[in-house]
Amino acid sequence: MQITAQSVWEDVQQIRTSSPLIHNITNYVVMELTANGLLAIGASPVMAHAPEEVQEMTAMANSLVLNIGTLSGRWVESMKLALRAANALNIPVIFDPVGVGATTYRTNTAKVLLQHGKLAAIRGNASEITALSGEESKTKGVDSAFDTKECFNQAKRLALQQNATIWMSGKTDFVTDGHRVALIENGDSLMAAVTGMGCLATAVSAAFLAVNPDPFLGCAHAAVAMGVAGEMSRESANGPSSFKTVFIDHLHNLALCEIERRIRVQ
Amino acid sequence: MQITAQSVWEDVQQIRTSSPLIHNITNYVVMELTANGLLAIGASPVMAHAPEEVQEMTAMANSLVLNIGTLSGRWVESMKLALRAANALNIPVIFDPVGVGATTYRTNTAKVLLQHGKLAAIRGNASEITALSGEESKTKGVDSAFDTKECFNQAKRLALQQNATIWMSGKTDFVTDGHRVALIENGDSLMAAVTGMGCLATAVSAAFLAVNPDPFLGCAHAAVAMGVAGEMSRESANGPSSFKTVFIDHLHNLALCEIERRIRVQ
Amino acid sequence: MQITAQSVWEDVQQIRTSSPLIHNITNYVVMELTANGLLAIGASPVMAHAPEEVQEMTAMANSLVLNIGTLSGRWVESMKLALRAANALNIPVIFDPVGVGATTYRTNTAKVLLQHGKLAAIRGNASEITALSGEESKTKGVDSAFDTKECFNQAKRLALQQNATIWMSGKTDFVTDGHRVALIENGDSLMAAVTGMGCLATAVSAAFLAVNPDPFLGCAHAAVAMGVAGEMSRESANGPSSFKTVFIDHLHNLALCEIERRIRVQ
Repeated sequence: MQITAQSVWEDVQQIRTSSPLIHNITNYVVMELTANGLLAIGASPVMAHAPEEVQEMTAMANSLVLNIGTLSGRWVESMKLALRAANALNIPVIFDPVGVGATTYRTNTAKVLLQHGKLAAIRGNASEITALSGEESKTKGVDSAFDTKECFNQAKRLALQQNATIWMSGKTDFVTDGHRVALIENGDSLMAAVTGMGCLATAVSAAFLAVNPDPFLGCAHAAVAMGVAGEMSRESANGPSSFKTVFIDHLHNLALCEIERRIRVQ
Repeated sequence: MQITAQSVWEDVQQIRTSSPLIHNITNYVVMELTANGLLAIGASPVMAHAPEEVQEMTAMANSLVLNIGTLSGRWVESMKLALRAANALNIPVIFDPVGVGATTYRTNTAKVLLQHGKLAAIRGNASEITALSGEESKTKGVDSAFDTKECFNQAKRLALQQNATIWMSGKTDFVTDGHRVALIENGDSLMAAVTGMGCLATAVSAAFLAVNPDPFLGCAHAAVAMGVAGEMSRESANGPSSFKTVFIDHLHNLALCEIERRIRVQ
Repeated sequence: MQITAQSVWEDVQQIRTSSPLIHNITNYVVMELTANGLLAIGASPVMAHAPEEVQEMTAMANSLVLNIGTLSGRWVESMKLALRAANALNIPVIFDPVGVGATTYRTNTAKVLLQHGKLAAIRGNASEITALSGEESKTKGVDSAFDTKECFNQAKRLALQQNATIWMSGKTDFVTDGHRVALIENGDSLMAAVTGMGCLATAVSAAFLAVNPDPFLGCAHAAVAMGVAGEMSRESANGPSSFKTVFIDHLHNLALCEIERRIRVQ
């Protein structure tokens, strides 16, 4: 199947119609942006992290986001519970390995989660994907020290290892399930100046995974949607904060004609 | 006493003059919006959740907000300590039962808090109020699956059971203390597309409860103020995120003439 | 050395060029604003609080922010670990004693941190600085009950006691290392209507401390940069929320000509 404006649009419409419930166990910095972004694309976000309720909440959800941006021991335990609950019910899980490679604790926690259950998809920057693939990585806190183009092989290897779709985001977005590959050239440089845009990409892809049974297509469609909204936002933004505001508005108002006009996928 | 533009305005002026201190034990997603909304209406917000200090912080406050949106065991213990401290000093407490009915843990925690102390008011959506009243409810994560009009009886029953004011928010806002009833038709549909607008309504009503000794009037006035700001915001918003920005600005600039022009209360 | 538009500008340029990594252990309310403000000034923010990783994260950072706005026992333990790690590597630490004087727990925690390691700088409002200096203070939750002009002596005394730079912010910003003094008259009253602007000032000064070896100059330069952005923002803001948006944009776009035109330092 091809990734076209029409195939992106069909998922967007299905998200708007069915309003899937997305359960997020995510970091403190991006919770508000993530919730607003999910509402904007048409999904219904919920944040819950207590071990007493994560399994029950996940069981109701249409997909699950695990994000280790501000991880701690108790939250990781809840992530493990939620991951198992999702796997038992075939609810897709997408993992955001924020800052993996920066500290031993993050790297080890990510490995533990990879071994603990099945992930439908992983979204990270080039440094994070490289670190997860087992290669030597460089990172600056939570920002990438690599360009995605240097790391295609690591992403493919990780996809095959994990039997999961990898969305490596950056100037060029690279989506692969190890067999198929999509390069998405949409987006804008101001996205990197807004905290949590990567985490939002992960959450938005969870909305696409909730309506599209193929995680490769779901991630590629999410990358196009985010990128198109980013390009539209640049045109009326004066800086990163007005960009953020306009971005969420454009995600809410996303129309087929804009996707058709702007989509750049190889 | 009647709910009029003038009676709303008197509370707003008193909040601006006295700048009541509002102690919030609330969820991670809405903390920033809540703090900014309270500053905008003229109150002074504080967030503190450590068991070592919640009693002392509550004792200084003019009202207390308890919100279980991202609850966990330790936070619930702090809520109980703060609730007792508030009751001992006759400081009004308003409770936001986010997601009650969605998981057993949320429902049980809400019941524990109801039994642990006296609440002046409870604000929730139709699903949450129905679940709290002891009836079978439906919920989708933290979003309501009911319209408020279907649930007036449950709200009244809960008000009488708890001897508290219930503000059930939705397209039509319904405020009752079990004896008196107010229906507020102000507001805008974009409010539901911004995360935390319900939680902000709860916090704003805490500011009104800090200056108005009658929780029924305080909640009704808060519902009018929120609804009027919502209507004004729609006129210059392009989507949910610019709506959020304009909303806080309008709350800050709220004027009697706009309340007079727009108030719709039965 | 003089504090001039040119000396401020040199630090700004160095931040933009070197993009220092700022490790923040800060409060939930301001995490997003802090991260976006640091990105806007040109720095690279990271938030991490788990005891398993704070030492490793601090060791990579160019400066460390400790902020007790929503403190709890576990977070304080992590702050102590990070403080020691920073001291061992001569990484500058800036402390934001949010709400000190409001509760015994906050006051005691601040004292413990002061004794636990060396702070390069402390930024707080007049009530907080007065409370830290050991004098009787008044506070309203996390807002100051004093004007900075009443508290110059307390700030100087604290600077000498701690061998640290004190930035006491308010209508007039007062920066001192106990020997040198700078009064900065830039800024706008709307800054006090946005939650977390004080915390953001602390984080932004951490970016300046990462590139300027003299904490007194770093804090004074940060105060000018924040104040100039505040004045520029007032001109296009309709209220506190649009002010916040424009403020981050202006921090991102800050130019020498605007600093030259507006700087007011004694």
